[in-house]
Amino acid sequence: MIKVGVVGGAGYTAGELLRILANHPQVEISCVQSSSNAGKPFHEVHQDLIGDMEGTFATDLDLNVDVIFICSGHGKTQEFLDTYQVPENVKIIDLSNDFRLEAVDNDFIYGLPELNLEAIKSAKHLANPGCFATAIQLAVLPLAAKGVLTEDVHVNAVTGSTGAGQNPSRTTHFSWRNNNVSIYKAFSHQHLGEINQSVKQLQNDFAHDIKFLPVRGNFPKGIFASLYTTVKASEEEVVSWYRDFYKEAAFVHVLDEAPDMKQVLNTNKCLVHVEKHGDTVLVTSVIDNLIKGASGQAVQNMNLMFGLDQKEGLRLKSSSF
Amino acid sequence: MIKVGVVGGAGYTAGELLRILANHPQVEISCVQSSSNAGKPFHEVHQDLIGDMEGTFATDLDLNVDVIFICSGHGKTQEFLDTYQVPENVKIIDLSNDFRLEAVDNDFIYGLPELNLEAIKSAKHLANPGCFATAIQLAVLPLAAKGVLTEDVHVNAVTGSTGAGQNPSRTTHFSWRNNNVSIYKAFSHQHLGEINQSVKQLQNDFAHDIKFLPVRGNFPKGIFASLYTTVKASEEEVVSWYRDFYKEAAFVHVLDEAPDMKQVLNTNKCLVHVEKHGDTVLVTSVIDNLIKGASGQAVQNMNLMFGLDQKEGLRLKSSSF
Amino acid sequence: MIKVGVVGGAGYTAGELLRILANHPQVEISCVQSSSNAGKPFHEVHQDLIGDMEGTFATDLDLNVDVIFICSGHGKTQEFLDTYQVPENVKIIDLSNDFRLEAVDNDFIYGLPELNLEAIKSAKHLANPGCFATAIQLAVLPLAAKGVLTEDVHVNAVTGSTGAGQNPSRTTHFSWRNNNVSIYKAFSHQHLGEINQSVKQLQNDFAHDIKFLPVRGNFPKGIFASLYTTVKASEEEVVSWYRDFYKEAAFVHVLDEAPDMKQVLNTNKCLVHVEKHGDTVLVTSVIDNLIKGASGQAVQNMNLMFGLDQKEGLRLKSSSF
Amino acid sequence: MIKVGVVGGAGYTAGELLRILANHPQVEISCVQSSSNAGKPFHEVHQDLIGDMEGTFATDLDLNVDVIFICSGHGKTQEFLDTYQVPENVKIIDLSNDFRLEAVDNDFIYGLPELNLEAIKSAKHLANPGCFATAIQLAVLPLAAKGVLTEDVHVNAVTGSTGAGQNPSRTTHFSWRNNNVSIYKAFSHQHLGEINQSVKQLQNDFAHDIKFLPVRGNFPKGIFASLYTTVKASEEEVVSWYRDFYKEAAFVHVLDEAPDMKQVLNTNKCLVHVEKHGDTVLVTSVIDNLIKGASGQAVQNMNLMFGLDQKEGLRLKSSSF
Repeated sequence: MIKVGVVGGAGYTAGELLRILANHPQVEISCVQSSSNAGKPFHEVHQDLIGDMEGTFATDLDLNVDVIFICSGHGKTQEFLDTYQVPENVKIIDLSNDFRLEAVDNDFIYGLPELNLEAIKSAKHLANPGCFATAIQLAVLPLAAKGVLTEDVHVNAVTGSTGAGQNPSRTTHFSWRNNNVSIYKAFSHQHLGEINQSVKQLQNDFAHDIKFLPVRGNFPKGIFASLYTTVKASEEEVVSWYRDFYKEAAFVHVLDEAPDMKQVLNTNKCLVHVEKHGDTVLVTSVIDNLIKGASGQAVQNMNLMFGLDQKEGLRLKSSSF
Repeated sequence: MIKVGVVGGAGYTAGELLRILANHPQVEISCVQSSSNAGKPFHEVHQDLIGDMEGTFATDLDLNVDVIFICSGHGKTQEFLDTYQVPENVKIIDLSNDFRLEAVDNDFIYGLPELNLEAIKSAKHLANPGCFATAIQLAVLPLAAKGVLTEDVHVNAVTGSTGAGQNPSRTTHFSWRNNNVSIYKAFSHQHLGEINQSVKQLQNDFAHDIKFLPVRGNFPKGIFASLYTTVKASEEEVVSWYRDFYKEAAFVHVLDEAPDMKQVLNTNKCLVHVEKHGDTVLVTSVIDNLIKGASGQAVQNMNLMFGLDQKEGLRLKSSSF
Repeated sequence: MIKVGVVGGAGYTAGELLRILANHPQVEISCVQSSSNAGKPFHEVHQDLIGDMEGTFATDLDLNVDVIFICSGHGKTQEFLDTYQVPENVKIIDLSNDFRLEAVDNDFIYGLPELNLEAIKSAKHLANPGCFATAIQLAVLPLAAKGVLTEDVHVNAVTGSTGAGQNPSRTTHFSWRNNNVSIYKAFSHQHLGEINQSVKQLQNDFAHDIKFLPVRGNFPKGIFASLYTTVKASEEEVVSWYRDFYKEAAFVHVLDEAPDMKQVLNTNKCLVHVEKHGDTVLVTSVIDNLIKGASGQAVQNMNLMFGLDQKEGLRLKSSSF
Repeated sequence: MIKVGVVGGAGYTAGELLRILANHPQVEISCVQSSSNAGKPFHEVHQDLIGDMEGTFATDLDLNVDVIFICSGHGKTQEFLDTYQVPENVKIIDLSNDFRLEAVDNDFIYGLPELNLEAIKSAKHLANPGCFATAIQLAVLPLAAKGVLTEDVHVNAVTGSTGAGQNPSRTTHFSWRNNNVSIYKAFSHQHLGEINQSVKQLQNDFAHDIKFLPVRGNFPKGIFASLYTTVKASEEEVVSWYRDFYKEAAFVHVLDEAPDMKQVLNTNKCLVHVEKHGDTVLVTSVIDNLIKGASGQAVQNMNLMFGLDQKEGLRLKSSSF
């Protein structure tokens, strides 16, 4: 059994992580730390956990674990590492964006299994990708792998309200968000850094822009991403690149028909669809922002880091409606 | 032209009031006070007002008006009256629940036009009914008028999130409220006071309970109320009581078929439906909680207080979908 | 391994059944029959099943199975039994309402595990309860078990659109149902038969009405039920009855705080809450209408009928948002 | 008073048209034809019209009117013109897409007031623009008017379910559409014809593509459109072009801050916002698809054709939530 510790246990991603790990056959949840909710039972904060797991949030993380998931929010991971002396043999999976970009002294492996499978298997420290970054990379990387990105890539992606975290705000107020649509951080979303990094990892000469419009959708969970660019190859050929790229992938499926977003909710899957319109290739991809876009992918990475089947604990029933 | 002042201009009910008054042919909006947003243009706070009305929120209310609408929130009206020396000739329409219940020294008329039409016409100070209270009274008062309430009245009413105001909270967070249902203040909602008061105004011997379960619905606007009790009369007869009771009503319609809530959204209407099942009479009623349940009814009352047609400024296009 | 056959495989309940059985460790899905979709891959109809299970719908059911789930819709089960010669040793779990009521020649056991646990364990033919019937019985049966139902029971329950099946209609049209509420089949819903039957099974002298208003909610999944009646016992005492009644239940939890509906979505749980207001006891209960209200409960019954742990295959991750 | 006839009175656009015309001070509704609902009262089909207008649908159109609105659906207008001998002096406003594209023998004026104001004033036959076409043109035409479109224009626009009409289908089923997102008719939507026609009317040398991804949103009403292209001018300059272009427009407002869609619901407004990101200009525009995108714009055109103030009958209260 893998002994797991969780830091920042009260947020949305920690909640989803606990919901998954509660049924993971190889995992024992040793300690869930939360500053804001120390002492409370898990199901007082994540109320649907009633009957699924017992225990209370701890003030301090117990380091006698095999792996630590850090769910504390962006900018807090270094603080954690400074506070705790994490033993050498304890692996770390960081769900924040603090260590996703390569840098001197950054020994975190970027944890997109479809890109860095072997590196992840031997990783000690892992930076789990962002939600938008996951959906968009899984749509674009097969083209980068073929080196065919020679123009701007146009991306539009709609995200659910859980992507904004659980602090109430004007744009997460039900009276405002219900039946509403809006754009934010046009062309400047923070996930562009990791997306560009991965594209260049596969196509070093990529010299154009990924033009990304993030959209606030009026639903709690899910990401629907569409992107297009110019590629001079037949639809059949491009589809075959995607099928090749994902032939070993545990959770990515290349569909014959365009997906709708609800097909993946509550699962770790990503569905990808490719179609050509003249010289334009259009790719759509859908994920659950909190699962494949966060906690499910973190568990997938844990499975890889500990030599388990990638799907262990992740054969999740879709919520479907 | 009626010169209007508004106190507490930044909240939901004030927003709806301004949207209605902006097109009222007999009204001139003289002053809109807001402590929290003094100095800002109206359409910076109520963003959809762009192009409909110009002006900025005032720090202090200008008392050179014919009528003041108080939209400050419950408990603040007395404070307002203590602060401002409102001239004798200025009428007051209070949207809070501060003066709805009869009391010594309370000279506010309870402003349900279907109940107190004549008193409203000559009122100087008016207490505008609550939203649940409006929907429920319009469903039950025709029975009280006949004196046939001899058992408990069972009420279930679902309200939109705007009923909870614009301060974000756990239960108005989109991620929580979307596709969710819950109950609050079971059998103890504060509107029971005014409902019972009106029932007894018409049927003095009413000695049973109005058992009311308020429900949080996953929609922003509207109230759907259903109530039933025992009445030994034929359906035809009971329906005729309702048609009689509302034969002069400007905004209440007794339908042949059960309504759905969206039929009244963005209007000042109340739709009522009556059916018998054995000895049980079932009444459903639907309103827009912010219009007939608040600001629209306030304008209807203003029309009555100033001798105008009740419908002036209130022939509103339904939002319908 | 239990070899499973499914009849009527294209509907909502069959879809949920397949989603659950796909990950059930003791089940092998042998044959899924569908007249309307024979020959098509499962994931062409239940599109989210991509990657979870392979296979195509069969024109005819293969009877070489251990258990048959009948998901054909109400009124079709007798037709199935007339058409197929189901061998003696093959168990049948019927999700329709055809055999829920006791009758001469009806050898189907009513499959509410919290009521008929032992009978279910030895059942050959089982009638799976209705969705509303499940939510309401789990709220009221502990009172019947104590014999304290001496007045009418007042029930209001809101259901999701999947309760109406997948055929499009006026009341399942998105443009109509979004943000809308309405009532149907007031005091006459077909599930009242099975509810009254179970209440009388526990309290034979029950001679009052269960007055039930079914409500169409603007969400796809879930049931939120509230009921109240008069009970002269302290809150503490009544709560203890509920805890006793459910102390061995695998999926029912008696909560200290009132639940919201989303706490149970995508799980087989039922959450129940009890509070007293004067002499009135108010009980709320929430389920997922397609899981505990249909396919999950059917699997729970299968587990019991085959001597498995009730939770086998039903430790489902909540969809939570 | 303008005597109005309506053809195809039972659909969504006819319903919105009636809701608007019911309160139009210069209009008398003479005849509303509907084949499917002849003989029924208006408020039996458009149920929210109760109390707003009386009358029943006619089998045949009475031609003794000043103007006919054709709401029959695409492809039916020629059929209407072949069946009825419309007198010379009766104006026609066609809401279908049958006559929007210039052609020999097509004497219908394209009815986008912000583009063809003077021509509309003297039009006898008018083709009312499509909903997407309206939102997108109002976002792009000020650039075309400056002749600065020298690259592809990238458009993403999300529409409500009412855009798909009232016939129930898989993609308008509530259980499917709630909380869902999907794309359709990628790069090939039928409105591209009229959009390109208008762009070339202002910038004859436009030789690039308008790449348009239409998105099905999970809300009933509204369109949120975003588009971007390369323009080498400062943000200040581009914004000034938009302000100039719309300085006489009755319903288009150029905002300082990016709009959200709900700001315009139930109104005839279009809100436009412009921002620069490097050489990229991003324009967002929002409309109500059934009002500015259909029936409201039709009334605006009627006002122009009859010499009235454009806003007559169109000072509509926003539904706001």
